[in-house]
Amino acid sequence: MGVLPRECFVHFIKQDYHYLKYYARAYGLLLAKSRSYAMITSAASTIQNVLREVSTMHKVFCKEWSITSEELESSPESPATTAYGAYLLDVGLHGDDSKLLVALAACLLGYGEVGLWIKAEAAAEDTWVTLEGNPYLRWIEDYSGRDYQNAVKQGIEILEEIVIKDPPSTLRLAQFKEVWNKCTSLEKGFWDMALTLT
Amino acid sequence: MGVLPRECFVHFIKQDYHYLKYYARAYGLLLAKSRSYAMITSAASTIQNVLREVSTMHKVFCKEWSITSEELESSPESPATTAYGAYLLDVGLHGDDSKLLVALAACLLGYGEVGLWIKAEAAAEDTWVTLEGNPYLRWIEDYSGRDYQNAVKQGIEILEEIVIKDPPSTLRLAQFKEVWNKCTSLEKGFWDMALTLT
Amino acid sequence: MGVLPRECFVHFIKQDYHYLKYYARAYGLLLAKSRSYAMITSAASTIQNVLREVSTMHKVFCKEWSITSEELESSPESPATTAYGAYLLDVGLHGDDSKLLVALAACLLGYGEVGLWIKAEAAAEDTWVTLEGNPYLRWIEDYSGRDYQNAVKQGIEILEEIVIKDPPSTLRLAQFKEVWNKCTSLEKGFWDMALTLT
Amino acid sequence: MGVLPRECFVHFIKQDYHYLKYYARAYGLLLAKSRSYAMITSAASTIQNVLREVSTMHKVFCKEWSITSEELESSPESPATTAYGAYLLDVGLHGDDSKLLVALAACLLGYGEVGLWIKAEAAAEDTWVTLEGNPYLRWIEDYSGRDYQNAVKQGIEILEEIVIKDPPSTLRLAQFKEVWNKCTSLEKGFWDMALTLT
Repeated sequence: MGVLPRECFVHFIKQDYHYLKYYARAYGLLLAKSRSYAMITSAASTIQNVLREVSTMHKVFCKEWSITSEELESSPESPATTAYGAYLLDVGLHGDDSKLLVALAACLLGYGEVGLWIKAEAAAEDTWVTLEGNPYLRWIEDYSGRDYQNAVKQGIEILEEIVIKDPPSTLRLAQFKEVWNKCTSLEKGFWDMALTLT
Repeated sequence: MGVLPRECFVHFIKQDYHYLKYYARAYGLLLAKSRSYAMITSAASTIQNVLREVSTMHKVFCKEWSITSEELESSPESPATTAYGAYLLDVGLHGDDSKLLVALAACLLGYGEVGLWIKAEAAAEDTWVTLEGNPYLRWIEDYSGRDYQNAVKQGIEILEEIVIKDPPSTLRLAQFKEVWNKCTSLEKGFWDMALTLT
Repeated sequence: MGVLPRECFVHFIKQDYHYLKYYARAYGLLLAKSRSYAMITSAASTIQNVLREVSTMHKVFCKEWSITSEELESSPESPATTAYGAYLLDVGLHGDDSKLLVALAACLLGYGEVGLWIKAEAAAEDTWVTLEGNPYLRWIEDYSGRDYQNAVKQGIEILEEIVIKDPPSTLRLAQFKEVWNKCTSLEKGFWDMALTLT
Repeated sequence: MGVLPRECFVHFIKQDYHYLKYYARAYGLLLAKSRSYAMITSAASTIQNVLREVSTMHKVFCKEWSITSEELESSPESPATTAYGAYLLDVGLHGDDSKLLVALAACLLGYGEVGLWIKAEAAAEDTWVTLEGNPYLRWIEDYSGRDYQNAVKQGIEILEEIVIKDPPSTLRLAQFKEVWNKCTSLEKGFWDMALTLT
């Protein structure tokens, strides 16, 4: 029904552009923290994915929604964006690679869930979601699509491998959960920021 | 006239407790970035000041306002606190020691200004500030007091020395200003957070 | 005339394998320190080049010289390798992106010079260098070749752009020189390590 | 019997002066990685100890051995010093606080052992160590003395607390051992450097 006001989505896209810079930088930090060529290669490949997400997906949105790249670059960063982005870097600064991977996974998995959830809602009876003619269809398709869902799957596999190879102690698991909870809470703040245009 | 609600001040103190942890850690990062024993010693001495601020000033406030140390420790961190604190660490991660000193100075100098300003307001005719019996008098005295004002003076001197020894290019100066503006904006967000209990 | 003993070259390749891990990680740190998507993209692209250098060039050398990948992975790291590699990360930790780029350029440009120099020596009259049948020809061709020389050219251009956009003060220039001198000295130590098998 | 040549000791003191800068900076990094005020306070206190070690102990040695502070400051850093010092920072960059504490403990405990060992050797029958009139007596007394041995004891207790609160997995323990072995090996390189004046 297109109830999401255009300016909310535009604000979201602008802040997402700032956020993804932190996200790519956090993967750069993960690469700097890596102990093997396999880990370095994996981090480098994710960085390429993020850059592709910015240069293709965002460019399409900006074109569709008439956001110039100057606007994108010069729009001030919201505190919710700074909080989430800089927190990722903080985890990378104070923790090890595993803890940083947990922080990075929260965002990766969250968007995957949102994409699938909207698609599932749209398929439900008496749904509130109309895909046909939906101005945000491309966004929904991207995050529910095969490429992104594969990235999610890979992200989960890497986490699974880590906890199998290096089973966390009770304390470490509690720290991982704390990071996860903080990230999801900052993620919620990010969505709220878009809706309230703050 | 005591118009500041008690819960705002209590919220502020709790968040300041979290913030000062980031602040001390950012000085730890400055120490790690130092190139001489003189700089290391200076950073180490500021860290001791911050720890003293937490262990004395905060303890007094908490006792006066019946905040237990468990409450202090367990109160959730506001997004405005995360944004400001983690941004300091980000500057320390991406920039050099001078840039980090600029970021750290914004907070140091700001509180010094606020302390002096309230004292000046209280001394004005028909003032809105009543110091006598003011429940927040101790806070005002601390930040307008000699010890804190000396720390401010030292902070300014360090910055002055830096720009004399290493005159910033136009670009670098613009970057310093950007950091300063971002910090003061995040600082404003911190005060707003206390007033809106967010 | 093939006077370089086989074991020196093998030792060099093994240590270079360890060193390039530091080198890629230092570029990861540069990426984490980047302020724009252009810089992030540039760092990400260099990381891909380094990974390609490791996975192709090194694999070829190892095959030619019968070094198994287990040997490569398990050979202990020489102190000269640790010194050079960890110093790059230290520059990235304590300085800004420009300073780190200076450190990274020393290695990039040095190998380019060595490659060209050997080729020039080989072309001289009464030369001490015989390219025909030279067991190390592939190495010489790689570092004097177009791909690597293009990377060198790009590295120089990035440095030139930086000093034009952000002209260093006398102090900063002195610090850049200090980093450069330290890197070339550690580089010399790396070559010596290969020759003395230490 | 005073067989250690004066220039070896002087070289050692000069390099130790450079090394302790890395050591203090690594504790600054540990402080930046700390999650609680207790850990911050502990790291800050160790930094003060290191600065005291430099400003008192080293000053005494330098006076006794006629090393001016200009000489101390300007003596070039040996590769063995860079390797050990920058490796500490690398551990702090890539690992978490526990791993960095392991790296820092290797040096702390090692010097404590050396101090006690020389004292024990001196007390043995037919000993090779003469304490009376020994030009290096002050050094031996310092590292075998109560203050330093207390610091060692505290360092061990912190490690013990960590492994009790956060029992390392098999992989993590192997990583701790790897750090420990690397540090002791770099420490050995540091002693060798002093003896060979490299």
